Amino acid sequence: MLDQRESGRHQVFEAIRNAGQIARIDIAQRTSISPATVTAITSELLSAGLIDELHPDPIPGGAKRGRPRVALGVRGTAFLIAGMKIADAKATIVLLDFVGETVGEFSHPLPNGRMEPGELAVLVRDVLQSACETIGRGVDEVAGLGLGMAGLIDAERNFVYWSPSLKPRNVELGAVLAKTLPMPVFVDNDANLVAKAEQHFGEGQGETDFIVITIEQGVGMGIVLDNKIYRGERGCGAELAHTKVQLEGALCRCGQRGCLEAYVGDYALLREAAVYGQDIPHDSVATLYAHAKSGDPTAQRIFERAGRMLAMGLVNIINIFDPKLLILSGQQASLDVFDAERLRNWVKSSVVQVDAPLPEIRLHNWGDLMWAKGAAAYAIEAVTRQKIQALSRDAA
Amino acid sequence: MLDQRESGRHQVFEAIRNAGQIARIDIAQRTSISPATVTAITSELLSAGLIDELHPDPIPGGAKRGRPRVALGVRGTAFLIAGMKIADAKATIVLLDFVGETVGEFSHPLPNGRMEPGELAVLVRDVLQSACETIGRGVDEVAGLGLGMAGLIDAERNFVYWSPSLKPRNVELGAVLAKTLPMPVFVDNDANLVAKAEQHFGEGQGETDFIVITIEQGVGMGIVLDNKIYRGERGCGAELAHTKVQLEGALCRCGQRGCLEAYVGDYALLREAAVYGQDIPHDSVATLYAHAKSGDPTAQRIFERAGRMLAMGLVNIINIFDPKLLILSGQQASLDVFDAERLRNWVKSSVVQVDAPLPEIRLHNWGDLMWAKGAAAYAIEAVTRQKIQALSRDAA
Repeated sequence: MLDQRESGRHQVFEAIRNAGQIARIDIAQRTSISPATVTAITSELLSAGLIDELHPDPIPGGAKRGRPRVALGVRGTAFLIAGMKIADAKATIVLLDFVGETVGEFSHPLPNGRMEPGELAVLVRDVLQSACETIGRGVDEVAGLGLGMAGLIDAERNFVYWSPSLKPRNVELGAVLAKTLPMPVFVDNDANLVAKAEQHFGEGQGETDFIVITIEQGVGMGIVLDNKIYRGERGCGAELAHTKVQLEGALCRCGQRGCLEAYVGDYALLREAAVYGQDIPHDSVATLYAHAKSGDPTAQRIFERAGRMLAMGLVNIINIFDPKLLILSGQQASLDVFDAERLRNWVKSSVVQVDAPLPEIRLHNWGDLMWAKGAAAYAIEAVTRQKIQALSRDAA
Repeated sequence: MLDQRESGRHQVFEAIRNAGQIARIDIAQRTSISPATVTAITSELLSAGLIDELHPDPIPGGAKRGRPRVALGVRGTAFLIAGMKIADAKATIVLLDFVGETVGEFSHPLPNGRMEPGELAVLVRDVLQSACETIGRGVDEVAGLGLGMAGLIDAERNFVYWSPSLKPRNVELGAVLAKTLPMPVFVDNDANLVAKAEQHFGEGQGETDFIVITIEQGVGMGIVLDNKIYRGERGCGAELAHTKVQLEGALCRCGQRGCLEAYVGDYALLREAAVYGQDIPHDSVATLYAHAKSGDPTAQRIFERAGRMLAMGLVNIINIFDPKLLILSGQQASLDVFDAERLRNWVKSSVVQVDAPLPEIRLHNWGDLMWAKGAAAYAIEAVTRQKIQALSRDAA
């Protein structure tokens, strides 16, 4: 359990981060912590180099007399943070400062999608090193690395039950990475990290509760409840791709039948198209989609069923969570395939009908780096927590 | 926002309720509220008649010297609380004291399942009046009534979007009931109230997070996260019966296709059996089930598909929530139909496979009164909140 002072430090720091810049007295007001305690805590945070006094001169709207109101802000240069996403064919990485400003972003092709844990650890180190060198910084300057990958991951333990990026199951990835990397590493499921990215930089800013559905080669889900990522008991909750949409349905790569991903994943679309041999392109979803757009009814039917199955998955999530906001997050090309307007109409006609507006569904067309940015945002949170815990230990 | 003192009153009262009996110093320890504040708050609660000093003599394990340790407990006689469930063919009602001890329980047949709101209000009053008279109490002694019914209900507003018990949609039921009843009424979806019953009296005691699936004529769900019922943005979350398990599947009573309930609800089972005319009984699920037990393969196949569809619904809930505990709650006859062992095996083979134990699935065979008891538990919570708010207003 947090003691009161430590919880106060977290609250004060979060108030400063959320506000961008804020005076002590306004922190006291927003957190309901006494002004004297706020002053004591901000002194500690200043000494530790986590925050800066941004305006030594009185800020606009400040008191006319007495001690001038000074704005505080998170110290951007306090720590360098890295976020990395491991995908099938490439690794993307961003370097952020402690405020969340991008310092550098890079993409590296990967030689093979499925690796031994040791191989992955070396790769992560090399990618990180090369990124740091490019911006003239050292790897040892990185205070924390967030690492995202597809699969079933217990983030709390940095434990990977299963990932398409790793050959073995049940990998203590945190321990493996600790051997090649000097900084703390925070591993999480990639869709959870997109939720983090939406919360910090995207459509989830200022929202306490929302659900993100990610659409790329497959589908993923991140659930934010009361500002926190919902993970479930064993850390493998929020699993959407392998919810069942058909009893004894299409075979899924996971070995089961009727999973949503077995209908909407890239491989599922191409599997359907392959039945038609030379008549329909099935080398990539992009060419198959172009074929559908050019008017081929069979290719159109393939996308239509996939879209209806995806709508069914969204309907189930809406019926279960009745969320305020649902964000469909992906790159434009992936979102196009599912025709947002048609998807929305299918969802509308199949959710439980109440005479109240449908939850808001927002599309967010991200670039390729959203995953890595989410990983970095996750690392910023984790590093902040560790630094404040260290402050509390020192104070005790 | 709660001020600190009001939040302290709630915490102290909850600590007393949860402990059954507890000394002031232990309350201070459990709540991290200072002993002086605990003493002040317990004085207020004693004056208001919400709690009692249970042992004026030193209690075992108490301090040997100084002021004797006195145990405090909730005052059972403080308030009489009622809980009522409106179902298709009957209303059940329980009267509880403020500790949650049953004072009386009754069941009344209902003339018709679907009523006008005014009709329902009169019925609720009559049932409550007759129950109170039987135990020699007056209706005006009831401090709060919890009312559960099937359907889509925004509990916060006592607003019924839709219920099979009401003819019109979108009923301000709170306002209608206020005209016939003198006490505050708290309306909620019946499955949420079963979750409440599990939390206070059943398998959910001591658990902060669990999911209840109710099985009777249909299926329902109640989600408890961090000790609170999860309701969603418009109050109509946790909807399981109308999640879709088949694209363009069986027609549901809600007017849509492929809902879980269109495969597992009593009406769905009987609809299947009816196809066979005189060959298979289809007047009640009980006789159909007896026919299956006697060896009829067609009747068996009807229950088998329903069971597999129900398993699919459970699998999806487990994949999404990764809950610590899933409670299947219902009367023995309803649970029997789905053969728990077979259900468990289907679920086991279809959830996302991680090398960690499956969430615990507990069966809870309740009597018919669980719904009403949950409604009463909900009313106890609501009355407690109101009484403590009143205390805080008086103190301000």
